[in-house]
Amino acid sequence: MTKKLLVSNRAREINPSPIRKFLPMAERAESRGIKIFKLNVGDPDIIPPGEFMRAVKAYRQKNLGYAPSTGILRHVEAWQKYYRRLGVRLSRSDLIPTVGCAEAIGFALQAVADVGDEVLVFEPLYANYKSFAVMLGIKLVPVALNIGTGFILNSSKDVEKKISSKTKAIVVINPDNPTGKLWSEAELYMLETLAKKYNLFIIADETYREIRFSGRPQTMLSRKAAAQNVVVVDSISKRFSLPGARIGALASRNAEVMAAVLKFAQARLSVGTLEQYAAIPLLEHGKPYVSRLVKEYKKRQAAAVKGLKKIKGAKFVASQGAFYQTVALPIDNAERFVEFMLADFSYKNQTVMATPMQDFYISKGKGQNEIRIAYVLKVKELAKAMDVLARGLEAYKAACLR
Amino acid sequence: MTKKLLVSNRAREINPSPIRKFLPMAERAESRGIKIFKLNVGDPDIIPPGEFMRAVKAYRQKNLGYAPSTGILRHVEAWQKYYRRLGVRLSRSDLIPTVGCAEAIGFALQAVADVGDEVLVFEPLYANYKSFAVMLGIKLVPVALNIGTGFILNSSKDVEKKISSKTKAIVVINPDNPTGKLWSEAELYMLETLAKKYNLFIIADETYREIRFSGRPQTMLSRKAAAQNVVVVDSISKRFSLPGARIGALASRNAEVMAAVLKFAQARLSVGTLEQYAAIPLLEHGKPYVSRLVKEYKKRQAAAVKGLKKIKGAKFVASQGAFYQTVALPIDNAERFVEFMLADFSYKNQTVMATPMQDFYISKGKGQNEIRIAYVLKVKELAKAMDVLARGLEAYKAACLR
Repeated sequence: MTKKLLVSNRAREINPSPIRKFLPMAERAESRGIKIFKLNVGDPDIIPPGEFMRAVKAYRQKNLGYAPSTGILRHVEAWQKYYRRLGVRLSRSDLIPTVGCAEAIGFALQAVADVGDEVLVFEPLYANYKSFAVMLGIKLVPVALNIGTGFILNSSKDVEKKISSKTKAIVVINPDNPTGKLWSEAELYMLETLAKKYNLFIIADETYREIRFSGRPQTMLSRKAAAQNVVVVDSISKRFSLPGARIGALASRNAEVMAAVLKFAQARLSVGTLEQYAAIPLLEHGKPYVSRLVKEYKKRQAAAVKGLKKIKGAKFVASQGAFYQTVALPIDNAERFVEFMLADFSYKNQTVMATPMQDFYISKGKGQNEIRIAYVLKVKELAKAMDVLARGLEAYKAACLR
Repeated sequence: MTKKLLVSNRAREINPSPIRKFLPMAERAESRGIKIFKLNVGDPDIIPPGEFMRAVKAYRQKNLGYAPSTGILRHVEAWQKYYRRLGVRLSRSDLIPTVGCAEAIGFALQAVADVGDEVLVFEPLYANYKSFAVMLGIKLVPVALNIGTGFILNSSKDVEKKISSKTKAIVVINPDNPTGKLWSEAELYMLETLAKKYNLFIIADETYREIRFSGRPQTMLSRKAAAQNVVVVDSISKRFSLPGARIGALASRNAEVMAAVLKFAQARLSVGTLEQYAAIPLLEHGKPYVSRLVKEYKKRQAAAVKGLKKIKGAKFVASQGAFYQTVALPIDNAERFVEFMLADFSYKNQTVMATPMQDFYISKGKGQNEIRIAYVLKVKELAKAMDVLARGLEAYKAACLR
């Protein structure tokens, strides 16, 4: 018999979100009247397309019933149209809407891996993958990419040597969170070839697909060579600035994967009915909005890079996409630095909230001096934030010397 | 190295939803012009309170950002007010909003049980628990309740003999889906006592809390003796006829459980922003709506019972709550019967869709002759449906004899 009333080990092992765990500290700073430039959460400040709320308000049915687990037909058709613009033809059963990309990530992982199985990831890594892996009993095996070499995967051997009999999949986030890296054609070809050779799935997280500062939006679904291996997880949260809508999707040409995902989807019944309808016009005609959005993020990237260049000792590779920038600072411990910024520092009653990157790594001890910045402020504000960050860093160094 | 590209074992093991898997067959029947009385899904036909869509339309913020993982403050406060009307004082951190009750069930299970751990359930059981258990690697151990004895738990020994060193929790759904059973004070006391004695959690699924045809709405949260053991999973889907809103909650006074659930909640980021706001007026002032709703379901229950009494060989205990009725029919295989009704039968171009109950059991071979009916039609329609069901049953018996 159980001796004590205890929560599960997985409940204990899972880390709090590195992006969200400092929120109480931020609330205390704000209650002291300090203005915080919040660069921690990828929560876009840009106004979403007006069509969305107009469509919500145009909902005329008297009931708000469950949507089909396969998604509302017109909503799925809108995703099909959206993908057709990317040159990809999907059948109705190749895609299932999800509660944001987060749910799609969980579905993808459990569709391909059992308890004890391994999934390869590139670190630094969007930290929530670690949480899902703990919940599902899956082991994430990290392949290290380094800021010093621009986070580039130089050799397929770096991946190959991590593959075991338990490896079931490789995760690739493109454009990448948290590094802002765009995966090159050579790298993607490498991953595709490995997937075929070792019979691995590729879980391609394309949440930030359109947000890239060069080249055209891509999807792994358009690659023919490993079509059966690819599972794409997707979202409208970033490209239409609608994270609160909780609309994502999972897409694959692998019928077995889709049959599994449908069963997972049935267990949780459905995705929000209103938002499925409201997302239709965006998926169908949202391209002009996205073009303007990308222009704006490109300006912000330039402003952030300009500001970061002025910070003594800061090392970074200018981000090529998404709206994140990984920065190595001349500090010992990024968590302590973030805490310092919120608790002990202000300049003209302002401070900056960034995300410490320790938790974006699986390997112990890595990322101790790195922070992630999300470009979720307008250029002018962002420039100010970079200045405050620079001043905070000097104050932190001075405080450490004391 | 993996020899083939295969989905996971859990993806294979999980059952398709018994409630949703016959939908393609229903679509085919409808395309032949047959009207189907759909008694399969717990998707209320009753119109939800107008305040909900009014609140959605009153959303005035320009952005639709992530909600906090802890829930929008005013939304959580509305849940607190709602529970206060049930005599329960919850602190802000005792409750976390979820994407429907479905997500709360997953969170509760993984908060208390690890891979390989056991959770006791009473069968027949709302089938989605089985899916979540497979996804999470948890073993559900069934305690049988029987239609012949009104699904009553007569002795705590029936539960005790199923408890092992791996048992972590007991699930109780009250009012119950699929039986419509109300758990008596004696039964709840039994469960509470066992939970204390063996240090088990009680996962109390109170989705149908108000929908009971006698007595007052209850919650396990009001029981003091095992306060630390109780985890309530809840939903607005049924009491406000809003399943498409995907708003639920998990509540517990156990701080460790809530800390775990917060981490799970952070991993999936947030619950729909619009619906959290829109649910506020219902949680605060929805009682009159719920009273009317319960009256309506009570009438329907009476109509269903009246109709079922006319069906030769049908055995059932009149449901006391929720809007479900388990019925044993003089048939060999309820799945085959449901298929027959959709594919081979119609009366005046009408048929009935019920849910076969095999998948509501864990023990093999049980429930072969049982169906679940959801009272999601108006009295007049329901009466017609019962008549069509009776005729369908006769036709099925005749077809089997041939």
